[in-house]
Amino acid sequence: MEDFSYVIDTFFALFAMTLIIFMVPGFAMLEAGLVRTKNVSAVLTINVMIYAVASMTFFLVGYSLAFGSWENSAMSMYAAFLFQMAFVGKTVNIMSGGVSERVRMIPLALFTVVMAALIYPVVVNISWGADMLEGTFLDLNMYDLAGSTVIHSTGGWALLAAILIIGSRRGRYTEGKIRVVPASNIPLVVLGALLLWIGWFGFNGGSVGSIASKESADTVALTIMNTNTAGLAGALVAGIIMYVRYKLFDITMILNGALGGLVAITAGPDLYNMYVPILIGAIGGALVVLAVPWFDKLKLDDPVGALSVHLINGIWGTLAVGLFVSEISFWDQLKGVVLVAAFVFPVSYGVLKTINLFFPYRADDEMQVQGLDVSECGVEAYPEFKRAI
Amino acid sequence: MEDFSYVIDTFFALFAMTLIIFMVPGFAMLEAGLVRTKNVSAVLTINVMIYAVASMTFFLVGYSLAFGSWENSAMSMYAAFLFQMAFVGKTVNIMSGGVSERVRMIPLALFTVVMAALIYPVVVNISWGADMLEGTFLDLNMYDLAGSTVIHSTGGWALLAAILIIGSRRGRYTEGKIRVVPASNIPLVVLGALLLWIGWFGFNGGSVGSIASKESADTVALTIMNTNTAGLAGALVAGIIMYVRYKLFDITMILNGALGGLVAITAGPDLYNMYVPILIGAIGGALVVLAVPWFDKLKLDDPVGALSVHLINGIWGTLAVGLFVSEISFWDQLKGVVLVAAFVFPVSYGVLKTINLFFPYRADDEMQVQGLDVSECGVEAYPEFKRAI
Amino acid sequence: MEDFSYVIDTFFALFAMTLIIFMVPGFAMLEAGLVRTKNVSAVLTINVMIYAVASMTFFLVGYSLAFGSWENSAMSMYAAFLFQMAFVGKTVNIMSGGVSERVRMIPLALFTVVMAALIYPVVVNISWGADMLEGTFLDLNMYDLAGSTVIHSTGGWALLAAILIIGSRRGRYTEGKIRVVPASNIPLVVLGALLLWIGWFGFNGGSVGSIASKESADTVALTIMNTNTAGLAGALVAGIIMYVRYKLFDITMILNGALGGLVAITAGPDLYNMYVPILIGAIGGALVVLAVPWFDKLKLDDPVGALSVHLINGIWGTLAVGLFVSEISFWDQLKGVVLVAAFVFPVSYGVLKTINLFFPYRADDEMQVQGLDVSECGVEAYPEFKRAI
Repeated sequence: MEDFSYVIDTFFALFAMTLIIFMVPGFAMLEAGLVRTKNVSAVLTINVMIYAVASMTFFLVGYSLAFGSWENSAMSMYAAFLFQMAFVGKTVNIMSGGVSERVRMIPLALFTVVMAALIYPVVVNISWGADMLEGTFLDLNMYDLAGSTVIHSTGGWALLAAILIIGSRRGRYTEGKIRVVPASNIPLVVLGALLLWIGWFGFNGGSVGSIASKESADTVALTIMNTNTAGLAGALVAGIIMYVRYKLFDITMILNGALGGLVAITAGPDLYNMYVPILIGAIGGALVVLAVPWFDKLKLDDPVGALSVHLINGIWGTLAVGLFVSEISFWDQLKGVVLVAAFVFPVSYGVLKTINLFFPYRADDEMQVQGLDVSECGVEAYPEFKRAI
Repeated sequence: MEDFSYVIDTFFALFAMTLIIFMVPGFAMLEAGLVRTKNVSAVLTINVMIYAVASMTFFLVGYSLAFGSWENSAMSMYAAFLFQMAFVGKTVNIMSGGVSERVRMIPLALFTVVMAALIYPVVVNISWGADMLEGTFLDLNMYDLAGSTVIHSTGGWALLAAILIIGSRRGRYTEGKIRVVPASNIPLVVLGALLLWIGWFGFNGGSVGSIASKESADTVALTIMNTNTAGLAGALVAGIIMYVRYKLFDITMILNGALGGLVAITAGPDLYNMYVPILIGAIGGALVVLAVPWFDKLKLDDPVGALSVHLINGIWGTLAVGLFVSEISFWDQLKGVVLVAAFVFPVSYGVLKTINLFFPYRADDEMQVQGLDVSECGVEAYPEFKRAI
Repeated sequence: MEDFSYVIDTFFALFAMTLIIFMVPGFAMLEAGLVRTKNVSAVLTINVMIYAVASMTFFLVGYSLAFGSWENSAMSMYAAFLFQMAFVGKTVNIMSGGVSERVRMIPLALFTVVMAALIYPVVVNISWGADMLEGTFLDLNMYDLAGSTVIHSTGGWALLAAILIIGSRRGRYTEGKIRVVPASNIPLVVLGALLLWIGWFGFNGGSVGSIASKESADTVALTIMNTNTAGLAGALVAGIIMYVRYKLFDITMILNGALGGLVAITAGPDLYNMYVPILIGAIGGALVVLAVPWFDKLKLDDPVGALSVHLINGIWGTLAVGLFVSEISFWDQLKGVVLVAAFVFPVSYGVLKTINLFFPYRADDEMQVQGLDVSECGVEAYPEFKRAI
């Protein structure tokens, strides 16, 4: 009964796509909560812009480059597109979050076009798609179910390039000190992180590609279970480390620990038994807690911890598949990590540098002091609430 | 295998219904973010009231009037009911949002009863349901898959009647000037609009009615894809117009542009190829940007832009099906638009006027100055936050 | 076609599980909105901690105790686990919400371990699971589809024990007066309650266990419809009572009325015709409105109304099945209510008392005055908003 799997897999792809779209408010709320009130409207506008620009560009240009064709016999080609489209903005979300509070809209929108039309589609092409490298010595055999490298490292390398070009926020590293900038709205941070967590079920579960047989139904359910378990472990370990160090439970770090675990599991949630993700996620959470101050020491200013969550754990998660799954070659995984880095980082750097000549990324000091909401949006986020600081 | 489609379509209707119910917090957060802090609890209470009163009334009275019978052989009759029930409150949400900051609860609840028991069910009856006009010269052949006219124009006409009766907010149009009232909480606006966007996938996708064959699975997926594309185009065009005019990205207008595109596509997302929605949505977004100041010039005070989003684009979207789909008659579409207007506007006006005699809709000046939270709810929305203005 | 039901029921369990996970942000936002700003980060951290600790503990220990085995032939065993795992944290959410603003994190985390490893699994075991009491005179025949007793009363009894041990918030009952503590953020309260409402569709609908035949599809759809109807009725009755008494619509009480109706229907939403839930939910809403001040008179300080919503209505809902469904014995229902109480209350009390010796639950007066955000988290929820009170 051919129709059965076509119908079920179309339905399932639409279900998974919908969960991933919840990551749009997820990222938006997370970042709106983490930045200062004077930059909240700007960050929110950036998030909506990314969804609109990246999705439309991917529809018109990027999807064909990634997959070569819209044809699809296993499910509705429209559902297959929607599921893939739900991914593309995430790479820019990762990048934009890390340069919050000093990045301008227009040049960011231009980079979003390039990311969705070219950079991300090429990475997909060589990893999941039409495979333009097939037959060459660069041909990838990396296993990356839902994008520890393809999504998270890609966004992370682009972010690293952006931070190097744009610099840190005004006054963040002065006189040898690191100025702490507290998150302005913790409920939004929690809401956003939990929506991302839920979206991840669609991200990873949907990436299995089919649920229409007993075996694939088991794989989908195991994938979602392992995804969740890694998130739990990441949160727990981050919480424990914070408590041991400071006798305090810093909720933003705990949530970043959870997200780190989720990124780390994303390369192979379908391949592990149900206990391995505890280890993968726990290491992911620990890496976040270690990496956040480390990036600050390097003066790489990342207000939301995106380098720690997405880049570090994107790499860790991809390599972990090679370490924990005997059928997967560690060297193939490493090759994938390196090749994607070698493509995304310099290309992003070059594109950002070029755009920067015409439309500077960095908001000037006056704009930063005043807040980007005024200069970029003309809309204050909370005009009626009196500021304490 | 008859059970297959019955089971799948029941499941799919429940999935779609659930997405639509996310529009309840969607409308609530959108409106709570757009109004001033002193009216936030009142607006939230109205939103919860609408869901409770409209759904219960539709269950007890309206559904039978609309469809004639609860019988349903294609899916569980309970699932069919739930899907339809999820729609009804939206017509009142559209109307209540536009009279925010001066409308009182009790008369609004009474109108909600009439809308859910009578006005909306009659519109559904002649458009999608039992069709009481069949065989008469008024019989409708309008194509309106998910309610550009049936839902959005209906709510819009009721809102126009309400604004004419209730008037503008105190001090909004004085001495020939239009006083700008800034939104109080932009993160809530963004969250609400994005939840509405996600809910639309259920609204339009579920309106296809079945996903249980290859053809219908394709139609559902195309419908959701086209819905999303129109939203993207609406957001992009609204953003571009705002930037060209003001060099600023006003996020509330961008989101209203997206919602305008979503309303416009709603009449025929299943009939277009995948490129037409770019045009439909782009025009939808542009119409919102043009209509918002136009209604202000007419002194029709609409704090959330509901006339522009829902009424203007409900009309545009319905007519667009006649323009872009060769099998659909433009005149049948126009006839539908006119007939629904000719029924909903005068009936709503009469009902509102009548209720107004006994329970005045308009909160008096003192209440408006103080804020409706105090007089209607006794609950301040943010009691601990010191007000700056 | 055996695969059909396996695939569909796995997919449906994953769908239902996802809806239930929306209750994690649901509880978090509801409680963050109900407490004072100085305790918001602490409450949010507790909610995330509960999800992480309870789920991980249930995975490693509790699930096997509850069900005896991971084997499952009707759907993927991973999906079956995920659906059950989504429940466990709720028992602690109920309990922790009611001791908000004075409970400390570490001892609460320890109790969460005991609840998820032992107390809740034993209740599930004797109600839905492996049934260790089978053949004894204590053997339960209680009908409790989705946990009016198993989840809500269990959480409620644990909360009662906790309130007796921890006491009321500092200054809440002094000089014979009850000090009213207003909710700090009403939009979050509404968002949270509506997310819980949506999650309930998964909770109750998923508890039917299968959707893969016509009969079970009807049962699932009826279950979700009845769940929703009871919530509507609870909200309406609570609103009406509040208006009759105070001429004001207190949105927090209306939402608690809705939640009361939802708890009350949870024991038997699949057994009633579609009109009975109106009565069940209406009584549920009324019970909440009556019980909230009653618990205050007893000086049982419960900032979120959890005893009224979950304990009172958990009992009412379980007994209601015996009253309204002729095939169900009232005495079996009562026996279930009593036996679960007789197990959960004293065991929780003993466990809490024991933990309390080593890690006191109660935050001292100084911490309470300062707010738990400082002492427990080191993270203020809204550091930039100036406090009015």
